[in-house]
Parts: sequence; C-alpha cells; structure tokens
Amino acid sequence: MQFTSEQRLDDGVLEREFTLGEIPGILWTPGSAPAPAPLILVGHNGGLHKREARLVARSRHSAAEYGYAVAAIDAPGYGDRPLSAADKQVRADLRRAKEAGEPLDEILETLIVPLVEKVVPEWQATLDALLALPEIGGPVGYSGMTAIGIQLAVVEPRISVAVFFAGGFVPGALRKAARQVTIPLLFLLQWDDQGNDRKLALDLFEAFGAEEKTLHANLGGHTGTPWFEVEDGARFFDRHLK
Amino acid sequence: MQFTSEQRLDDGVLEREFTLGEIPGILWTPGSAPAPAPLILVGHNGGLHKREARLVARSRHSAAEYGYAVAAIDAPGYGDRPLSAADKQVRADLRRAKEAGEPLDEILETLIVPLVEKVVPEWQATLDALLALPEIGGPVGYSGMTAIGIQLAVVEPRISVAVFFAGGFVPGALRKAARQVTIPLLFLLQWDDQGNDRKLALDLFEAFGAEEKTLHANLGGHTGTPWFEVEDGARFFDRHLK
Repeated sequence: MQFTSEQRLDDGVLEREFTLGEIPGILWTPGSAPAPAPLILVGHNGGLHKREARLVARSRHSAAEYGYAVAAIDAPGYGDRPLSAADKQVRADLRRAKEAGEPLDEILETLIVPLVEKVVPEWQATLDALLALPEIGGPVGYSGMTAIGIQLAVVEPRISVAVFFAGGFVPGALRKAARQVTIPLLFLLQWDDQGNDRKLALDLFEAFGAEEKTLHANLGGHTGTPWFEVEDGARFFDRHLK
Repeated sequence: MQFTSEQRLDDGVLEREFTLGEIPGILWTPGSAPAPAPLILVGHNGGLHKREARLVARSRHSAAEYGYAVAAIDAPGYGDRPLSAADKQVRADLRRAKEAGEPLDEILETLIVPLVEKVVPEWQATLDALLALPEIGGPVGYSGMTAIGIQLAVVEPRISVAVFFAGGFVPGALRKAARQVTIPLLFLLQWDDQGNDRKLALDLFEAFGAEEKTLHANLGGHTGTPWFEVEDGARFFDRHLK
C-alpha cells in the first residue's frame, strides 16, 4: 500500500489517498486516537467515485465524530479506474434499455455480477493492508451497496457488522446468498426509490440470516437518505465495534 | 390535578402519581432541569398498566438521560380503573374468540373504538393540567399505541411529533384518518409480531400523511422491541422537541 497524498482536514481528520497495486483508495483516520481505530469499509458502485460528495461527508463525519478509520476504494471501471471494452458495452446497453423503457434486470446481472466478483477480492486485499497499519486495529464493519456487502459478508469473516443501502440491483445468486449473512445488519431503505422495487427490498430484509437485523425506511428517492441515518449508522457500529 | 405520592428515584428522577378527576396517572420529571422540560405522553392500552415494567423503564430513562417530562395515564378499564359491564363482556368475547381461533377484528373494533373515544379527551385534559405546571414547558410528543396516537395527532394540535408502536389493532376509521397525521413520525414495527399483520402495518406506514416519517423494523415478537429503540426514539424526539 502506497500513500500518494496526505492532507489534514479542518475537522482534524487525516485524509490519505493510496494505491494498492491497481486499486486506488482513500483512508480517513481520526485526528486524535488514543488506541488503534476500528475500521469501516465504504463500498459503493453505480458510478460512485470514492470522491463522491455524500460518501466523503459521511466518511469524514464517522472519523471526526465517532473515531473510526474509514476507507473507500474505486471498483474496477469506476472513479479513477479504466473502463474495459466489455464494461463500455454493457453500460451502453444499459443506457439504451433505460431510454427504451425496457426491462433492465438481465443487463444489470451482466453489469453487477462481474463487478462483485472482481471487487470483493480487492476489498479483501485492501483489508489485509489496512489492518497492517498500526493506527487501525479492527474490528471491521462494512457500509454501502448491498450486492458487494452480501458477498463480502459471506466470504470474509473479518467483517463483523454491516450497513446495507437497499437501493440497488442485487443479482439473483446474491439474493439467494442473503440467508448466509449472519452478522448484525442495519438495512436502509428509501421508501420512494423509483428505480428499485420496494417489495424486493422487504423480501431481501426478510431473507437475511442475521439474528439481529434492523430496517430503517425513510421517505424520498434513491439519493435522499436523511443525514440522521449517518448518526444512526455510527451508533449502530458503536454498539458492535466498540 | 392532585399529586397523591412523590418519590425521588436513584437516577434523580422525581416520580409523582396523580389523579385528575377519575384519571390516575404518573409523571416522571428529570432530577435537574435548568428550564421547563419538554413533555412526552406515553399512551398504552391492551391491558398495559401505567406501572408496566417496560413502560416505566423507558419513561424513567427518557427523563433521566434526555431531560424529558414523561406522563402515563391509565385508560378507562385498564390499570387502576374499574371495568364497566360492557368492557367485561367484550373482553370475555375476545378471550372466547381467541381460544376458538375465530377472527378477532370485529370484537377488536368493539373494544378499541370506544377506548380511543374515551381516552383521547382524557389525554387532552391531562395535557392541559401538565402544561400548567411550571416545570413543564412543552412542546409535546406522544409515544405509544398507534390507534390512540392517530386520533390524538388528528384532534390535538399541541402534539407536534410522535413515536407509534405498530403492533396493535387499528380500527378502520383510524386507518382512514392516517393520512391526516402530518406531524413527524417514527413507526416501530416488530417484524415477527404474530398477532399483527405485517402487510397491514406497512400499508399504514405508507398511508400516514407526514412528510417526515421513518420506519424502524426489528426482528422478534410483539414485546421484543430492542432497548436501543428507546435511545433512537429519544434522539428522534430530541431532533423535533429541543
């Protein structure tokens, strides 16, 4: 892991960009930490850059106010990373199908299944590198996209708690794997997310194998998750990681 | 309003029993309050006494840790209050129908509709008396049973925010009135509440007219609401009452 930039922000948080092989990422760590900080991995896709404004605001807040180390990486084909010819094709297909009002599930499977297959091992490698830093102590939580989170929770025993954003396509195989997700979960649903079926999201909540799972649903569309859910999420992590 | 007992509890909270005409109630106020405290009305029925252990624990916590004045009353026919002959009959009918595995909706309508009609004006009279105390300043929130809460929110403009417990029968007329409930709401659903239909609860959440409404769903049965929802509820009130 190579740190490529370092900046002390006005909330005291240390923000460092890094690369790990071809993976670009950012690490936010609290300004003052008496002990190694517990870690939250922030996993997004859907065009989300690791520098996306809401992601950055949430991550910095979790570091500054709650003392977490928070890391985000760009998944293959997103943010600073090159698009393969296959990526370009499937995104063009998706745009065309959206404009034509056609069903999207088959194209989304083609987009999301390989993304999850590629990014989950990258998250595991990133986790190895992050936990080797003296300022990070674990345990580890995940916050972000559901599809990545399900796979990560199933294959990676170091992830001990997760916040999943319900809005987003979850491939069939990962929906089936939901019952294997047994870590404590907070599942965030935007009630009026036009691009995502509410019934499917509620069925997925039902399917998770966790003994402690909580659903928070709020009014509004896909990107309208209220800021107080950042606070609720931090306290949820506090209950399980501290 | 006559105070009939007074006790300083070990968390500093002052617990006073009162009567207002034939209405018996309890008021918990914080040990030290620099200013008049905002008020939370705790509305239960279904056999719940104002001295019920979970209700008392939540109320004391809200007073001791969050600085709220919290009041509970016994509804007509519950707790310390006498049962009318009609109350006795309908409860006997309910027991018999439960034992026989018969549908309960019609009997529950007969039980809950008059209860709400009687207790809501009592809550309003109690509110008048509580707000006349110098140590209580308003604004006012409600926490408790949904049926009572809907009617109270519709007729009583001094209620400015509410936490509703989804588990409990809501008569048809009150389900229809849900769209008139426009104050901020936190709606608590127990996902595996066998006595209450989950779909009906989700439809009711959809129906509320509030622009800010949040659903929290947790695993477990009717009485299994996790303690952390007491904390979440207090912070929800904090956002709107302080």
